[in-house]
Parts: sequence; structure tokens; C-alpha cells
Amino acid sequence: MKPKSTRIKERLHEIIFEADTREGKLFDLTIMALTVSSTIIVMLESVEWMRLKYGQIFYAVEWGFTTVFTIEYLLRLYSVRRPIKYATSFFGVIDVLSILPAYVSLFIPGAQTLLAIRALRLIRIFRVFKLGYFVKEGFIIVTALRASRFKITVFLTFVFLSVIVIGAVMYMVEGGTNKDFSSIPQSMYWAIVTLTTVGYGDLTPITGFGQFLSAFVMILGYAVIAVPTGIVSAEMVRSTKQVVTNTQACPVCSHEGHDNDADYCKYCGSKLNED
Amino acid sequence: MKPKSTRIKERLHEIIFEADTREGKLFDLTIMALTVSSTIIVMLESVEWMRLKYGQIFYAVEWGFTTVFTIEYLLRLYSVRRPIKYATSFFGVIDVLSILPAYVSLFIPGAQTLLAIRALRLIRIFRVFKLGYFVKEGFIIVTALRASRFKITVFLTFVFLSVIVIGAVMYMVEGGTNKDFSSIPQSMYWAIVTLTTVGYGDLTPITGFGQFLSAFVMILGYAVIAVPTGIVSAEMVRSTKQVVTNTQACPVCSHEGHDNDADYCKYCGSKLNED
Amino acid sequence: MKPKSTRIKERLHEIIFEADTREGKLFDLTIMALTVSSTIIVMLESVEWMRLKYGQIFYAVEWGFTTVFTIEYLLRLYSVRRPIKYATSFFGVIDVLSILPAYVSLFIPGAQTLLAIRALRLIRIFRVFKLGYFVKEGFIIVTALRASRFKITVFLTFVFLSVIVIGAVMYMVEGGTNKDFSSIPQSMYWAIVTLTTVGYGDLTPITGFGQFLSAFVMILGYAVIAVPTGIVSAEMVRSTKQVVTNTQACPVCSHEGHDNDADYCKYCGSKLNED
Amino acid sequence: MKPKSTRIKERLHEIIFEADTREGKLFDLTIMALTVSSTIIVMLESVEWMRLKYGQIFYAVEWGFTTVFTIEYLLRLYSVRRPIKYATSFFGVIDVLSILPAYVSLFIPGAQTLLAIRALRLIRIFRVFKLGYFVKEGFIIVTALRASRFKITVFLTFVFLSVIVIGAVMYMVEGGTNKDFSSIPQSMYWAIVTLTTVGYGDLTPITGFGQFLSAFVMILGYAVIAVPTGIVSAEMVRSTKQVVTNTQACPVCSHEGHDNDADYCKYCGSKLNED
Repeated sequence: MKPKSTRIKERLHEIIFEADTREGKLFDLTIMALTVSSTIIVMLESVEWMRLKYGQIFYAVEWGFTTVFTIEYLLRLYSVRRPIKYATSFFGVIDVLSILPAYVSLFIPGAQTLLAIRALRLIRIFRVFKLGYFVKEGFIIVTALRASRFKITVFLTFVFLSVIVIGAVMYMVEGGTNKDFSSIPQSMYWAIVTLTTVGYGDLTPITGFGQFLSAFVMILGYAVIAVPTGIVSAEMVRSTKQVVTNTQACPVCSHEGHDNDADYCKYCGSKLNED
Repeated sequence: MKPKSTRIKERLHEIIFEADTREGKLFDLTIMALTVSSTIIVMLESVEWMRLKYGQIFYAVEWGFTTVFTIEYLLRLYSVRRPIKYATSFFGVIDVLSILPAYVSLFIPGAQTLLAIRALRLIRIFRVFKLGYFVKEGFIIVTALRASRFKITVFLTFVFLSVIVIGAVMYMVEGGTNKDFSSIPQSMYWAIVTLTTVGYGDLTPITGFGQFLSAFVMILGYAVIAVPTGIVSAEMVRSTKQVVTNTQACPVCSHEGHDNDADYCKYCGSKLNED
Repeated sequence: MKPKSTRIKERLHEIIFEADTREGKLFDLTIMALTVSSTIIVMLESVEWMRLKYGQIFYAVEWGFTTVFTIEYLLRLYSVRRPIKYATSFFGVIDVLSILPAYVSLFIPGAQTLLAIRALRLIRIFRVFKLGYFVKEGFIIVTALRASRFKITVFLTFVFLSVIVIGAVMYMVEGGTNKDFSSIPQSMYWAIVTLTTVGYGDLTPITGFGQFLSAFVMILGYAVIAVPTGIVSAEMVRSTKQVVTNTQACPVCSHEGHDNDADYCKYCGSKLNED
Repeated sequence: MKPKSTRIKERLHEIIFEADTREGKLFDLTIMALTVSSTIIVMLESVEWMRLKYGQIFYAVEWGFTTVFTIEYLLRLYSVRRPIKYATSFFGVIDVLSILPAYVSLFIPGAQTLLAIRALRLIRIFRVFKLGYFVKEGFIIVTALRASRFKITVFLTFVFLSVIVIGAVMYMVEGGTNKDFSSIPQSMYWAIVTLTTVGYGDLTPITGFGQFLSAFVMILGYAVIAVPTGIVSAEMVRSTKQVVTNTQACPVCSHEGHDNDADYCKYCGSKLNED
């Protein structure tokens, strides 16, 4: 029979990491509720009149949440078989970042604002509620984005270098007469605002030639926004298709590419295996 | 022979719900015209000088429309076979929402503005004018959007959590010196304005580091806008294709939806006709 | 032998409508040059200090151009076999619209600004320079857009009805405290500015609830911008594919869908016809 | 044995143009580091207080960089077999543009700002670090854009002509009461800002009719942004597919690029291997 500490570990693991048992589900739901509450309190605390009125309550409650999350983190580290692997995993890093700002705020006042990172813990929601379909679809998105990563990198490099050149040119053209373009970094900020079609309008060209060049930058931004969209669309078409069709193969003629609702091979008419 | 009340019901149903007979068409066109007039009057009433000048006329006319629409709604409830099903259907809900604000405005002045919801009744236009092609094409859009709903949900969850984190970080960076970022909720509003590339410019970063971070958020918004577009494009490619391949029907089992290169029915394995 | 008037007509037709002969090409190039000059002068005339300084010259020159274009239009009408068909064709309408504003301006001063419509005559540029490839590719775009017209109409109807409802709601929420939303039509203008992600920022919500609703509208605009892009992308994928592949069919097994560089049928290995 | 000068040339070529040897890699990395430093200094110099404080140091350092890059350029010209071909190549032109502004600034003060063009030399980064995958993926993007060039040109011509007409109409409508639309060129600038959905808000319509027309322009911009995205997406789907299908090679003629469903080589008609 296993030693007692191992049994406790396994029981804890079941409760904390899994959501199949009643206790496990209850634990996850409690943590979810605490996370949502904590995030809302961080938001409210940032509103001045609420901070002035309820500041001390917020302070106390936040430390309560932090204590709970710290204990939860330690229990996770204790109960998991490979603590290092968990600590360096996506959720492990988020769990630490969710409590760190509170302790940092003891030395650097104001750091507790970053407790809003706790919101990212809510990504677990899809796992807790067994929303397998969402996880699968989210996976398609991630797959498409991952498949696009080289193209996106090349594209962003091009955009970044263009921003430098555009920034320098606009600084030369507008810099003298328009304080909105008083340095290259500021012109680069304008270039990004324009290329991404955000267009705040906090910085705008005023000389005729500057407006003429801006028009070119906007048209370029047009072509430019088509590129990442095209990249992701193409990958999405591919990854959607793969998930939808690729798994079945005809047992007679070995043709693949059958639809999910196909019972017979569309090339030779043989019965397909059930899946 | 059917009792008289049943015959009246059936006759009413024919007139109100169908658009095949002369009376039915006339009824629908009248309702359309009234809906358009009513919507225009709600709009005009909101313009101050018109309200001051014609306010009383608008008031009387609106109540006239409301009376007609209320009678119409009651007749629909009366003439349809399953009133509950109609009342909870898409158009049933819109029909109620189109008259409710008038009655609510007796208690809460100003609520009559929501009569603009009446505009949604115009969606019936495609049915009334027998614009079957439009209905079918609209169906493709709805199908593509429905097929994308899990992906879109996952995507929006990611966007929402990002907005919280971005909001908190920008509040920390800009909050002290820039009254545009005086709380996390306000910073989150800014984050949404920026990520969606709307970019009003009512709230803008002013510190160098804040502008630097904003540039990142904009570039992220770039990648981010590519995702829903990619999702919908991929589904649209698929659903367009399905509609396109729909013409072949299996001579044995009558199933449709075969691919263009299919030689055998994928449902029953029979040989398809050459086309 | 044909009567003289017919021969003149045919000769004129050759010069004016075709660009194969030396005279035809010279005629087209002259017209192009005049159109560009005329458009530039309309633009320059709108700049105040230039109008004050060179107004009279501009006036004289514009009437010169108008005279030439009027004669050209009459000659086109005279030389073409079916004048009505030309007059109601795309270019026929543009040709009239290019001279009309000058005559209208005799009665309504300022109408000559619309002479800028002359710019549209430059669409002929692709025909004149025998840029067949451009015409073909432009045709693919037009085909894709035409194939999307039902979907786009349904989509725009939905957008328009949404704009009415959003406008009414925002007018209710912001109207009282924010003069930017002082009527439903103005709120609808704001809704369009926001949904299209243009985001001027000339009208912005100031109440907390108004900003909250705006955030929803922006997220909706996100999903919404994905729809026309998806529609056009899907059609573009289809129309590109059709143009690229659909024409060749295998002479032995009749399979279609061969790539442009295919010499042999990929299904049965037979030699394809040269094209 | 080759003459000494040839051997030096070849050795130089190996160091400067290739990145396989240790010296070649060291050379490339040095140049990269200098380019980054130089670009940063051009940026810093544009910030007023830094220019006032460190202006002289920046001046000296920039001339140092320029000297090094000039020598590098001359060595490239000397060591390459066909100097003209290099000088007119993409990188050859960028290399000249990276040093020219410094010499021009001796005659036209301020021209040194254009030294920011040096940033474009960093495109070499993908070659230097042997990031073949990035080069390949970048190639797909370039291929897709190149394949779209005719469509994009036709599209931009249409946009440009629309901008002229929209500009003229808005100048007529708003010109009298709104100084934002005081000339056609300025209205055209507004039209581009609006059509591209950048929407600075520095120029906005104020008359009711002007806002009504603007709403149309925005909706048009909507359809319009769908076109380049659709074009690029369609090409991206195609060029991705080509890369994906590339794995099969004909056992007889070794041609690649067969579709997944191909049984016979489309170039020579031989039977392809099953895969």
C-alpha cells in the first residue's frame, strides 16, 4: 500500500488539477469565483472615488485573495509529480504572476495594479466546464497562427523597417513646421497609428506635402492589412479542412478526404469504417 | 364543414402570415409602409427643433402606429395555430419589442425612443417580396457565422482578457500623468478602441513609454483583426462550396451535398449519375 | 460601293472607338491628355489663392476643354451604329456627365466642380494601352463582386437596421448629457463611423454606460467587418480558380480542372490538347 | 595559378557576400551591429534635447559609420564579378542610399535624417542567420503579392478615381461652410483618410448632408477594404497550396507541384508513385 503522504498528494492532485470529481469541480469553481472577484476589485480600486471611499476594504480583501492564491500555488507545486514542469508551464507562470505583484507592492507601491493579470487564469474556464469543443476550435486558431508564424515574422520585420523609413521621411517633411513630428520616434509612433488604420488623430500632418505622403502611407497600410489577413485566412482554410476531413481513409481504395458524414467511399463506393 | 371561427382564423392567417394572395400582399405592404413611416417619425422626433415644432403631431401619429401594430400583434396571436411558438420566435419577440416602448413611456418618459426597434420588422422585406435568392444567400452568411461561433467565442474571450491586462498596464504607465487613463475601466475602453482600430483619439497616451506600448497594442490589433476575418473567410469558402455542390442528388437514396469529384454516393454507396 | 457618309462614319468610328490604327491611338492619347489636364485644372481652381490669381485663365481653359469634349461626344453619337445603346452605356453616361456640369454652371454657379467626374473617363486607359491582362483581372474582381451582390445586400440591410437601433439606444443613453448625441440621425452617423472602424472621434461617448455600449458596438464592428471580407475572399478564391483552371478538359477521360501548365491529364495520363 | 589580385577578390567576395566562413559571418554580424547602432543614433539625434546635449558626438559617430559603410560599398563593388549588376540590384541600391544622405547633407543641411534608410539593410538579417524558412515564407508572400499586382493596380486605379470624384462632391457640399473642405485636394486627403478607415478626425463633415454622404463613403470603404484582402487571401490560398503539394516528384521527369489527387504526372503523363 502507498505511504500516506503519497495518498494525500494523489488526492490533492485529483482535487486541484482535475475537474471530474465533485470536490475537484467545487475547488475549480471556487477558484474561478475568487479570480473574477479579485479582478473586479482591482478594477474598482483604480477608480479614484471608490479608492478614497473603500480603499481600506479593498486592501484587506485583496490580501485575502492573495493569501488564498498563494496557498493554492504552493499546494499545486506540492501535489504535482513534476513541480518544475508545472512551474514553467503556461498556467504555472500565470499563477505566479497572479500573486507576485501583491508582494512586489510592499516595496514598490502601485505594483498591485498588475494583479489584473489574474484575469488570465480564467482561460481555465474552458477546461473546467468541459467545453471540449471550444478547446478544439481554439486549437485550430492556435494551429493556424503557429503555422503562420514565419510569414507573420517576415511581415512584421518589413512593417517595422518601413515604419523607421516613413518616420524619418515624415520628420524631415513636417518636423520644421509641425510640433506633432518633432522627433523620429514620435513620427514612427504616428506611422504605426496610421499604417494600422487606428488613426487617433492626436498627431496629424499639416503641410500639403506631408498630407500627400500620408495618403501614400494609408494606401500602403491598405495593402499591408491585406497581408496578415490573407496569411491567416489561408492557414484557417487549410486547418479547418484538415480537421474536418483528413482522418478517414477508404479500406478498399485508400482514398482520403472524406467528409465527416460520409458512410461510403466517394471514389469506389466501398463501405467506410465507423469512427 | 369547419366551424366559422376556424374559417376566420384560417383566412386571417392567410392574410397576415402569407404573401401569396392579393389581400396578403396588400396587408404586408401596408405594414411595411407603416413601419418605415413610424421609424422615420421616431428619428425626426429626436431632432430638437422638429420636436419643439411638431412634437404634438408626432405624439399623436406615433400612438396611431402603436395602436395599429398592437392590433396586428393580437391578430397574429389569435390566428396562428401555436401562439406560444410565434410569441417566442424571432419575429414574435421583435413584434412585441416594437410596441412595448410606447406603453413603457407612459411610466418612464423617453422610453418611446426605443420604438426605433421597429426598424427590425423590415427584415421581413425579403420574405414579402419573394426575394428567395436573398434569403438563401443570407442563410449562407448565417451558416458561416454559426459554424464559426465556437472559434469566435474563444477569440473574444482571449480579446476580453487581453483588454483587462492591457488596461491595467496602461493605467499603471499613463495613469499618473495622463487624466485619459484615470482608471482601469477607462483604460480598458481605450484598449478596445485601439485593438479594434476604431481609434477615436478621445483618449491617447502622452508619455513616451505609453506610446511605445500603444504601438505594440496596435500591432497586436493587426494580428487580432486577421483572426475573425480568417475564421469567417474559411467558413464562407466552405459554405459557399457546399451550396455549389448541392446540385447532384443520389438516384437511389436522394441524398444531396456530394463533392464535384464524387463518383459514388457517400451515404449509400450507389453509383452517381454522370453530369 | 458604300455611300460617302457611311465611309466617313466608319472612318470616324475607327478613329474614335478603336485604338488599333495610328490615328485611333493618337486620338485616344489626346483625349486622355486633355482629360488629365482638365481634371488637374478643376482641382487647382478649388484652391482659393489659385482661383483668385488665375481664375479667369482657368475659366477660359475649362470652357475650351468642355467644347472639345462636347464635340467628341457628338461625334461619338454620330459615328456609332446604335447611338441609344452608346448613350446609355457605362462610358456613354460618364461622357455626358463629364460635360453637363459646365452647362449647368451657367445657371447654378459652382456646379462646374462636378467636372471632376471627367476623371472617370480615365478608366478607358486600360483599353487604350491594350492592357488586356488588367482588363481580365479587373473582370475577375467585378465577377467576384457581382457574385457577392446578394450576400452584400443582405449584409448591408442588416448593418443599416443595426445602425438605426444602435443610434436610438445611444441617443437615449448619451443624449441627455452629451451634445454629440443630440438626435437619432446624428447618433446613427456616429454608429456608422464606429462600426466601419473609421473612428473620427468628432463624436464620442462620455458617460460610463455609453462607453460600455460603444465597446460592444466596436466588437460587433469587428465581427461585422469580417463578413464582407469573408464573402469577397470566398468569391475571389472561386473566381480565381475558375479562370485559372476550368477551360481545359482531357480528350480521353474528359476530366477538367487541370492547371495551366499541365501537358498530360492528371487522372488518366493522356496527352492534353494544346491551347 | 590565379593572379594575386583575383585571389584577393575571391577572398573578399567570400567574406563580404557569403556567410559560410567564420570571417564572413563575423563581417556580416559587425555590419549588422553597425547598422543598428547607426539607425538608433539617427533616431536619437532627432530628439531635440539629445541633439542639443550630444549633437557633436552624434555628428562625429555618424561620419564614422558613414566612412565604414562607404568603404564597405567600395569593397563590394571591387570584389563582385559584375559590379553593375550589384549596383542596380535591390541591396546595391539600398547600400548607396544608406551613405548618400551623409554626403548630400554637406550641401543641404538636414538631409542626414534620411540615413534612417540604413534600417533597410537589416533585411539581410534573414540571409545572415541562415533563416531559410523565413526566406521561403517571405517568398510565398512576395509571390502572392506579385500574382495580385494586376488586380491591385486595377483596384487602386478605381480607388484613386473614386477619391477624385468624392473629393469634388464633398468640396461642393461642405466647402462653403466648413474650412476643413476648403479645396478639392484637401477633400481628397479627407476621402483617403476615410476610405482607408484611418479616420484621424482632423477633417470632418459638419453639415447634415455632408455627414450623410460621409456615411456612404464609409460603407463604400467597407466594401473596398474587402477587395484587396480578398485578392491577397485568394492568392495566399493558392500559393500556400502550391508549396504544400510540392512533396510528390514524378519518377520519370522529376517534375514537382502535383495536386494531391493526381495519379499521373501532368508534365509527361507517367504514372506517379502512390503515397
